[in-house]
Amino acid sequence: MRDAAVYTGRAAVRAGVLVTGTEVLTGIISDRNGPWIAERLRELGVDVAMIEVVGDRPADLLGALRHMEAEGVAVIVTSGGLGPTADDLTAEIVAEFCGREMVLDEQLEQRIFAILEPLIARWPDADPVAIRAANRKQAVIPQGATVLPPRGTAPGLVVPALRPGEGPTVVVLPGPPRELMPMWEDALTSAPFRRAIAGAQPGEREIVRLFGVPEAQISATLREAAAAGLELAQLEITTCLRRGELEISTRFAAGSRGHYVSLLSFIEERHGEHLFSRDGSTIDEQVAQLLAGGETIATAESCTGGLLAARLTERAGSSAYVLGGTVAYSNDAKSGVLGVDPQLIERHGAVSVEVARALADGARRSFQASVGVGITGIAGPGGGSPEKPVGLVCMSVSRGLGEGRGELSLTRRTQLPGDRTAVRERATTVAMHLIARVLRGESD
Amino acid sequence: MRDAAVYTGRAAVRAGVLVTGTEVLTGIISDRNGPWIAERLRELGVDVAMIEVVGDRPADLLGALRHMEAEGVAVIVTSGGLGPTADDLTAEIVAEFCGREMVLDEQLEQRIFAILEPLIARWPDADPVAIRAANRKQAVIPQGATVLPPRGTAPGLVVPALRPGEGPTVVVLPGPPRELMPMWEDALTSAPFRRAIAGAQPGEREIVRLFGVPEAQISATLREAAAAGLELAQLEITTCLRRGELEISTRFAAGSRGHYVSLLSFIEERHGEHLFSRDGSTIDEQVAQLLAGGETIATAESCTGGLLAARLTERAGSSAYVLGGTVAYSNDAKSGVLGVDPQLIERHGAVSVEVARALADGARRSFQASVGVGITGIAGPGGGSPEKPVGLVCMSVSRGLGEGRGELSLTRRTQLPGDRTAVRERATTVAMHLIARVLRGESD
Repeated sequence: MRDAAVYTGRAAVRAGVLVTGTEVLTGIISDRNGPWIAERLRELGVDVAMIEVVGDRPADLLGALRHMEAEGVAVIVTSGGLGPTADDLTAEIVAEFCGREMVLDEQLEQRIFAILEPLIARWPDADPVAIRAANRKQAVIPQGATVLPPRGTAPGLVVPALRPGEGPTVVVLPGPPRELMPMWEDALTSAPFRRAIAGAQPGEREIVRLFGVPEAQISATLREAAAAGLELAQLEITTCLRRGELEISTRFAAGSRGHYVSLLSFIEERHGEHLFSRDGSTIDEQVAQLLAGGETIATAESCTGGLLAARLTERAGSSAYVLGGTVAYSNDAKSGVLGVDPQLIERHGAVSVEVARALADGARRSFQASVGVGITGIAGPGGGSPEKPVGLVCMSVSRGLGEGRGELSLTRRTQLPGDRTAVRERATTVAMHLIARVLRGESD
Repeated sequence: MRDAAVYTGRAAVRAGVLVTGTEVLTGIISDRNGPWIAERLRELGVDVAMIEVVGDRPADLLGALRHMEAEGVAVIVTSGGLGPTADDLTAEIVAEFCGREMVLDEQLEQRIFAILEPLIARWPDADPVAIRAANRKQAVIPQGATVLPPRGTAPGLVVPALRPGEGPTVVVLPGPPRELMPMWEDALTSAPFRRAIAGAQPGEREIVRLFGVPEAQISATLREAAAAGLELAQLEITTCLRRGELEISTRFAAGSRGHYVSLLSFIEERHGEHLFSRDGSTIDEQVAQLLAGGETIATAESCTGGLLAARLTERAGSSAYVLGGTVAYSNDAKSGVLGVDPQLIERHGAVSVEVARALADGARRSFQASVGVGITGIAGPGGGSPEKPVGLVCMSVSRGLGEGRGELSLTRRTQLPGDRTAVRERATTVAMHLIARVLRGESD
């Protein structure tokens, strides 16, 4: 009944993440900062108790800060509300929360102005007096706060509790991820932040990936592992389905590596043939690495409509091995552009292993690639039949080994669950795995 | 300094959204339920005060519920923690929060068993006794709660405050979106939920979309509108960049439509040529509708690597007008597969308006489509030069009007900001707008 599960221990230092901004709360833009900050905190061995999103309202901001304090967090990290406009009020509310005065930091004001000056010069309509006034606001900060240098025009802040140990330290970061992310590095090294998380034990993290195992089966395996006496309580294990693959992420204290190694052996024993990544590498990275060894690839897609080509070319440098692809959406295109025998389509239907194989060969031939991939299927919601239901996808990978040395190929017929988007995306994942297997030398 | 902005009024009935699950808190899976529920509540005229994510820990769950109560919400909607395992404890904690006993609902137990029975039958290794015991847990609910029928095996709940008016009503929903979303409809019609939101005034919502206007300029326009005396305080205006387009969403009370109409006129006056959607339709919907009028389309992509074909085929029914496409990643593919003159590439470079036009014509010819699209560019991070920097994209759309009736075409050279992923995605958006314009009869 869940798409991911976590088996967790408990760390000593707790933190809360507070994301501010009505635009985030209303879901108009989706928040990426909350999970990102939470992940960084966990890397430090800090236990994240909650992520809360509130709008730009003083009472709601203050209420959230007090709630987190009540839940016993040592650190609160906020994102957003540091801009020059009146509804940007995080610094002020944090000062109130910490019982600190707001004071103008003149050095900071000059620093911000130095950033603005060239921008004002380039913008003829701008009113420099108004802009400077608006940005002075950004130089008014809680007394005693450590300033994190602006990455845009907004400085960040680390605001310790007024009396050490009595209340959380608040790290105040701007909302735009391109400012927040580099500023986090500065927050990390600030003295009040280091003090606040002093008790945290940074752990290690290992990721493995499986393909073709239902998540319920991994849950069963973990229960068996616990029953067999493995100390899972020393490990924080999170399982998650991503693009049709199962990711198992395990965090543990440095001293608990032995428990992790035992768990990995246990998983290998039961699911060895489905465990395709022991080092956290994704199938995309593996395929890229395999192709980089002197192969070239071309695709011929029907139901995935270009998604596989788009996925293969997502990576910088992919032009070294991706020659191209064809989206053959109509039967005429399959025959005309890729040279698939129309009789083959008539005899077996466009969605068939035979046509998938012909598409793979056609792609190889058209683009003179060493590896060809063919995908044909019924993504739905229409077009299904009792013999060929929605979700049926046939795919084939063929690979020439060079003049006179023959070829390898794998061809599969698979039934994928989900709606049109899910079928299309999962089909590309299945294809990526098929490509990797052929590149490793497998063949039907 | 922000990617979206909201200009908001204030509603009378407040709500909180509580997303539970360590797997969500750890960012292993990203939460879609929180923003979705918040949006549904806003449609009802309910003001969402916060979205909070907590792990599967009793104290944190209870702390979050009490925090929301303290902030004066009339309704709390929770998602997650209704499964059969021990760490699924939302119902129990909500009962404690509301001061209600947990009781076994025997009718509900039978209902859940009826759902499980066929599943158990299909699963030979399952232990029916253990499964039935685990699922009995799901039939133990807070006394006095309204049961929302299971959409998987987990029932939802609407739990009113013990004494009417003293504390929030809690709507308890399961975590999987495919269960949560349909169950929301049942929650809506339940008597205790209706009572809890009785004071809310559902408003209206209008969306318009612009393309080619920087967000800062829209902010300036909104400030001018306010200065010109428009009553923006009666409107809740949210602006947001999505796939390179600007969306302006406006909520207002039924009586304030006049203010919205004035705002729309104001925007039309200043940005009329960039306002491509007055009814909320997306460019994808517009292109699909235009193509459905008897046209067919084919693509030839270089830097976007299949993303445009994938976007065009995203929609069910697109096979009626998408014939196919070619990803011509290498120069050889551009010449060999699409018949682009190699001398043209040599003279102007692969990234040039001339080659974009030849690609568009090649796509039309190869697939015998009425409309052809060609895209060539430098997605980066490598491959840029002073004359042709990363982000330069050339594209062309050509459309044959039928035998002897000539053709229309638009060809553009554009410099796109951002990283590889952003350049590739924005290029598809620019192409979609170019396609729409040619289909509406424009030509260079």
